[in-house]
Amino acid sequence: MSADRAVERLRVTYRLTCADGEDPVAKAQDIAYEQTVELPAGHVSPDVAARIVGRVETVEPLGDSCWRTVVSFDEGIVGDDLAQLLNLVFGNISMKAGILLAEIDWPKPLLGRLGGPRFGIEGLRWMAGVRERRPLLCGALKPLGLSADRLAQICHELARGGIDIVKDDHSLVDQGAAPFRERVERCQDAVTRANRETGGNSHYFPNVTGPVSAMCERAELARRAGCRGVLVSPLLVGLDAVGALADACNVAIMAHPSLAGGFFNERHGIAPEVLLGELFRVAGSDAVIYPNVGGRFTLSAATCDAINARLRGPLDTVKPAFPVPGGGIDAARVPEWIDRYGVDTIFLIGGSLYAQRDLTDAARRLLQAVRRHSDG
Amino acid sequence: MSADRAVERLRVTYRLTCADGEDPVAKAQDIAYEQTVELPAGHVSPDVAARIVGRVETVEPLGDSCWRTVVSFDEGIVGDDLAQLLNLVFGNISMKAGILLAEIDWPKPLLGRLGGPRFGIEGLRWMAGVRERRPLLCGALKPLGLSADRLAQICHELARGGIDIVKDDHSLVDQGAAPFRERVERCQDAVTRANRETGGNSHYFPNVTGPVSAMCERAELARRAGCRGVLVSPLLVGLDAVGALADACNVAIMAHPSLAGGFFNERHGIAPEVLLGELFRVAGSDAVIYPNVGGRFTLSAATCDAINARLRGPLDTVKPAFPVPGGGIDAARVPEWIDRYGVDTIFLIGGSLYAQRDLTDAARRLLQAVRRHSDG
Repeated sequence: MSADRAVERLRVTYRLTCADGEDPVAKAQDIAYEQTVELPAGHVSPDVAARIVGRVETVEPLGDSCWRTVVSFDEGIVGDDLAQLLNLVFGNISMKAGILLAEIDWPKPLLGRLGGPRFGIEGLRWMAGVRERRPLLCGALKPLGLSADRLAQICHELARGGIDIVKDDHSLVDQGAAPFRERVERCQDAVTRANRETGGNSHYFPNVTGPVSAMCERAELARRAGCRGVLVSPLLVGLDAVGALADACNVAIMAHPSLAGGFFNERHGIAPEVLLGELFRVAGSDAVIYPNVGGRFTLSAATCDAINARLRGPLDTVKPAFPVPGGGIDAARVPEWIDRYGVDTIFLIGGSLYAQRDLTDAARRLLQAVRRHSDG
Repeated sequence: MSADRAVERLRVTYRLTCADGEDPVAKAQDIAYEQTVELPAGHVSPDVAARIVGRVETVEPLGDSCWRTVVSFDEGIVGDDLAQLLNLVFGNISMKAGILLAEIDWPKPLLGRLGGPRFGIEGLRWMAGVRERRPLLCGALKPLGLSADRLAQICHELARGGIDIVKDDHSLVDQGAAPFRERVERCQDAVTRANRETGGNSHYFPNVTGPVSAMCERAELARRAGCRGVLVSPLLVGLDAVGALADACNVAIMAHPSLAGGFFNERHGIAPEVLLGELFRVAGSDAVIYPNVGGRFTLSAATCDAINARLRGPLDTVKPAFPVPGGGIDAARVPEWIDRYGVDTIFLIGGSLYAQRDLTDAARRLLQAVRRHSDG
């Protein structure tokens, strides 16, 4: 027992919903075998059973046919492979029923290998030149369909208003209306020009999500154009792409949650705070966008708080990452959100800035309100 | 109107489940805007609205608060970018509620650009030397935790028994017990040796799912070792990896559904036959593994039939791909499944071969049964 405890294991908490007559202990055991050897217990040698098969640590009733189980795995199964991490914790059992991945306890060596954010909150603050205790502001460059010139003009207006980070809408990739290279060069130039005019320090983060063969090339092109960060949708291109891009091109990573909602089922899936707050963070995201409560999407206030906590909380040597609530935040309500979420937040304001006549003026007034509120 | 019809659009059918008081037409319109411009209708110029915003083509009641809507998109938004395809059809709306992606009508130019399977059913049959009208047999190499030597021995036993394709369990990546290079070289050698002994034509498909930087290298290493195909889990590494590996290394692709179950919610998600039967196929999978009805997983018989139909059905110039039902198929029942699914199927038999004393003998008897049944 003491020898076992010396080996740190990846401990995964699942909330099980049992169908009529389904035994929670058998269901937990099934996870332990399905996610490792994919064989019934009788066909696994004692040696492999001891080393590789998951261990059911606890099974506790939660009432209402629900149970909480902790299954632990040898973290060596993962190595430093993020695809395999996702596969181990939810791959095959995604195709079963009544299994919610609710929590992960991370062994230190695994965290050390995965690395997490390269910049993190402090690094991004430094990059954005925001030492004062205020949240950062992020604007969305949109819509798809505009020319590179028109998008650059919007970038200029937002940057002149003092928006810290202007990010591409995640649907802007390499379409004909604004091809990647042209868009990135013009938008970055527009932001640089605005910074010169205002003495500010705004940044443009282009979306590099795309074909495997193009992603690194695009991030490198962005870096050469002067961008210090990029946007990527990890679930569209694999979690591993986050760290791969960060390492290859030395850029900060803002992660977009596209496709994540597929997993947000209450009874079967991955809890949003685990997927966006932990898996996206350990993969190396410096900032993670999520759909804020009360906007166009469906997360609860408690879930948003939990995502913030997981992104910013202590996690051994892994740096904290910025939560980026978005998806319909009203600029007028940002002060309220600062009270709720605190200053280590990036507020993503899209439509509600575009709804105002003068984008620069709207951005400027928003920044002033944020500054006043953060000082107060 | 006539001009519109000449432009082929990507037509996506969603099944909407409306909450109390929710208007299905407004819900369909919301999809059209959310998936393209991410702005309210009032803030989009007429030009962008006409070119880029999705068009709600139809909204029809299905009863029980459900509606069927077709939203069409300009296929130029996708280009040849599979990440963007997934983003367009389900990215942001994954985070809403009551939206099931039920069907896709593919414009020919888009299919031409995406390409689909490089080998397809005919190519894989040719590769496996199976001209006779019988299904192919696939065995799973397992479990994780065995040494490369022990895995190679199992490969040899399965190949000697005439299994057409021995594929890695999808949890075998590059772990210490059987590092990738060592495993692939020994397993491929074992299969080559078995072929020499029997005059057969078995193949070994190693799992190359892994870090972006390693995947192509592993596939290339596999090809050099003599492998003609590989296993990949597209949802762990991005759909685009499928075609990228096929093109870079000239290997056939067997796709594994790991993580896919996250989307298989009846009211909100992506229908399994669309995800595994269409998206995996257009991405370039030559064969697609899915969890067969009656095994360890939860798909219905009708869904399995639908997956088979989508993988094999006509789709302009896109080659048909092999359905690979697995996940607990009993070797003894394979003849029944041949009656149901037809001969253009690869049956993946894992645990039920391992349950027998002599693997080679079990495989041989299975192949004989399949041959007898296919002739009959």
